[in-house]
Amino acid sequence: MGVNLSPMGLFVQKYGGTSVGSIERIEAVADKVATFRSEGHDMVVVLSAMSGETNRLIELAHKIQEHPDPREMDVLVSTGEQVTIALLTMALKKRGYDACSYTGGQVRILTDNAHNKARIQSIDVERMRKDLDTGRVVVVAGFQGVDDQGNITTLGRGGSDTTGVALAAALKADECQIYTDVDGVYTTDPRVVDSARRLDRITFEEMLEMASLGSKVLQIRAVEFAGKYGVPLRVLSTFEEGPGTLITLDEELEEMEKPVVSGIAFNRDEAKLTIRGVPDQPGVACKILAPVGEANIEVDVIVQNISAVDGTTDFTFTVHRNDLSKAKGVLDRVSNELGAREVVTDDRIAKVSIVGVGMRSHAGVATTMFKALGEDNINIQMITTSEIKTSVIIDERYLELAVRTLHSAFNLSEATGV
Amino acid sequence: MGVNLSPMGLFVQKYGGTSVGSIERIEAVADKVATFRSEGHDMVVVLSAMSGETNRLIELAHKIQEHPDPREMDVLVSTGEQVTIALLTMALKKRGYDACSYTGGQVRILTDNAHNKARIQSIDVERMRKDLDTGRVVVVAGFQGVDDQGNITTLGRGGSDTTGVALAAALKADECQIYTDVDGVYTTDPRVVDSARRLDRITFEEMLEMASLGSKVLQIRAVEFAGKYGVPLRVLSTFEEGPGTLITLDEELEEMEKPVVSGIAFNRDEAKLTIRGVPDQPGVACKILAPVGEANIEVDVIVQNISAVDGTTDFTFTVHRNDLSKAKGVLDRVSNELGAREVVTDDRIAKVSIVGVGMRSHAGVATTMFKALGEDNINIQMITTSEIKTSVIIDERYLELAVRTLHSAFNLSEATGV
Repeated sequence: MGVNLSPMGLFVQKYGGTSVGSIERIEAVADKVATFRSEGHDMVVVLSAMSGETNRLIELAHKIQEHPDPREMDVLVSTGEQVTIALLTMALKKRGYDACSYTGGQVRILTDNAHNKARIQSIDVERMRKDLDTGRVVVVAGFQGVDDQGNITTLGRGGSDTTGVALAAALKADECQIYTDVDGVYTTDPRVVDSARRLDRITFEEMLEMASLGSKVLQIRAVEFAGKYGVPLRVLSTFEEGPGTLITLDEELEEMEKPVVSGIAFNRDEAKLTIRGVPDQPGVACKILAPVGEANIEVDVIVQNISAVDGTTDFTFTVHRNDLSKAKGVLDRVSNELGAREVVTDDRIAKVSIVGVGMRSHAGVATTMFKALGEDNINIQMITTSEIKTSVIIDERYLELAVRTLHSAFNLSEATGV
Repeated sequence: MGVNLSPMGLFVQKYGGTSVGSIERIEAVADKVATFRSEGHDMVVVLSAMSGETNRLIELAHKIQEHPDPREMDVLVSTGEQVTIALLTMALKKRGYDACSYTGGQVRILTDNAHNKARIQSIDVERMRKDLDTGRVVVVAGFQGVDDQGNITTLGRGGSDTTGVALAAALKADECQIYTDVDGVYTTDPRVVDSARRLDRITFEEMLEMASLGSKVLQIRAVEFAGKYGVPLRVLSTFEEGPGTLITLDEELEEMEKPVVSGIAFNRDEAKLTIRGVPDQPGVACKILAPVGEANIEVDVIVQNISAVDGTTDFTFTVHRNDLSKAKGVLDRVSNELGAREVVTDDRIAKVSIVGVGMRSHAGVATTMFKALGEDNINIQMITTSEIKTSVIIDERYLELAVRTLHSAFNLSEATGV
């Protein structure tokens, strides 16, 4: 096939359910793709199902089985993307562009056989390469694959992002562009802070912390995947023009481009449990947390206070709010066994985090955070830190205030070098 | 695998769109299949899309392209059956029966690459055999296959019947049962003749003549296919109990079982064109019909009168009513070229046929027909005959009367030997 000397790029573009939610929107996506193609770029397009369609199919299944058979569920819901790839390909052909649609099984996107949550194992790029070499736009169903027995599998909800990134990695694309209904990644939620600013760039690590903390722009697995394979990932709006936010490797950012803090993430999904007056013995943390893990409850922030004079300690951790009553039940049992004083819970908490790769090389970032919150009389209940993130648990009532205060304390409204 | 010593049968059952038109109906089909399976039969089930679904998908496509790309059309509409096979398999599993769904591509039903009207070339039965050997119900998407490049193809509308017959032939099934919304094949349309009687048996040839004349119980191609491979075909109602009608080879009917006439078929879909005063020369029929064929118009009944004293003749043929104005245009041109007198058309005609393999060995059947019509003063405009069929073209107004008269003249209300 020879070396590609073209200055043009190979782009993988992924459009979500709202972007292909009607015939009119599919036509608009075709216009967008056609523009890129007419500029000379090689184009691979990954689509979700029309918004609402996947839920419609799931409801049909639930009318039959409360817990539908996982293999058949994948056969059922994978039809949603198959519809949109056919329709977009027709719309491209109408515009005079050569195009061809492929299901996950046709590409072929090989996965393990974990139905409803399969993981991609390999992608056969030969057929796509041949199409691209002839100038054809390749349109691929997101969210789905096929196991080595030819059974249809799906990657789980939101998995179309992962399909886009995986195709970009396999094809060594210049960029994977995720089109969605927001125009990029923001320093924080614009609904909370008016002056929140769209970031031009962010690193994969920062994006992961932002995503896992409630900025639901991108699927976490897709970001991990892109980071692992170094696929430049761009988040853009389907409905507005603009450069979006480019998510890249840390090394690709100039030192001067690196803000100390890139954004403020937050969520209200957690609840706090404290077991009071636990005899402070070696292994006590394990005795408390092991039964919680066995009950399939995920624990987030964990804090153990130093021993009190009576030789007991307090042990606090947070779980998802949905798991609170289940966790309370487990902890009451543990409390009895350990002879602890009491178990108290609080679901009126919120987590606020500052995220930024610059924190690695800048001391005092956490101090600035604590100082700013202190000046607003916001009491910090728990603290947890990682290399590029510092999180605090506070009273839920002060969440908006804390986010605004921190956004301002780290000057996030002002654009940096990029 | 050894020799199967079981007295039980292997049945391929096909359920049409109305039979799987809702979750409730899919549950009812599951009950029916489960009953057969629990009696020990090996079961393969072929499904159409839910009624209305294929049209919904086609409408989506037509909003984008007036003539949708054929390959993409197949990608699109094949999702309809994929939905129903998943739902029925779930319903079977809910009832405690092992079952597995397969798309046309998974089975694998290999076709040529004539999208939207593909023909089956081969079927890989290995996977189905393995499933059947373990007692699993095999649920297959009708109407679809895959070409040798892995592209999704469809067999054209109504093609699910063909899938059923092809699977039955490949698996050497004991019977292919086509479940539909009528309880069998009738001596004529019960809406026209009250005493129309369900036939217990009919031959493939008779069924072909009945089907092509407007008894839309079965797809013609499926009957041809079943006849060619000697697959016993049974038409039954999804909604009522009963033996339906068995369609078999002529040789399998005892002589005494063979009625002279099995049924009265009719249709109102045709229109008649006459070119008057054509110079009667060798090759004139070809000069008239060749341009009609080139315009892709199918011609049914053809009659050429003997020459008149002036050396000219009248030439009459019928076409589908939808093609009448197009055919008129072609014929006007031909008329000018040949120096004919005029072209007249009539779309108020109907065709009535008597069908029966017994006609082969019984003289005078046509005479009985003409006599009966004459006694009712029904004028016969055209006559055409084949080995097992005699058709007449009459004024549309007398259609019902003609059908009733013939039904009675051949004693079709009375059951024969079978």
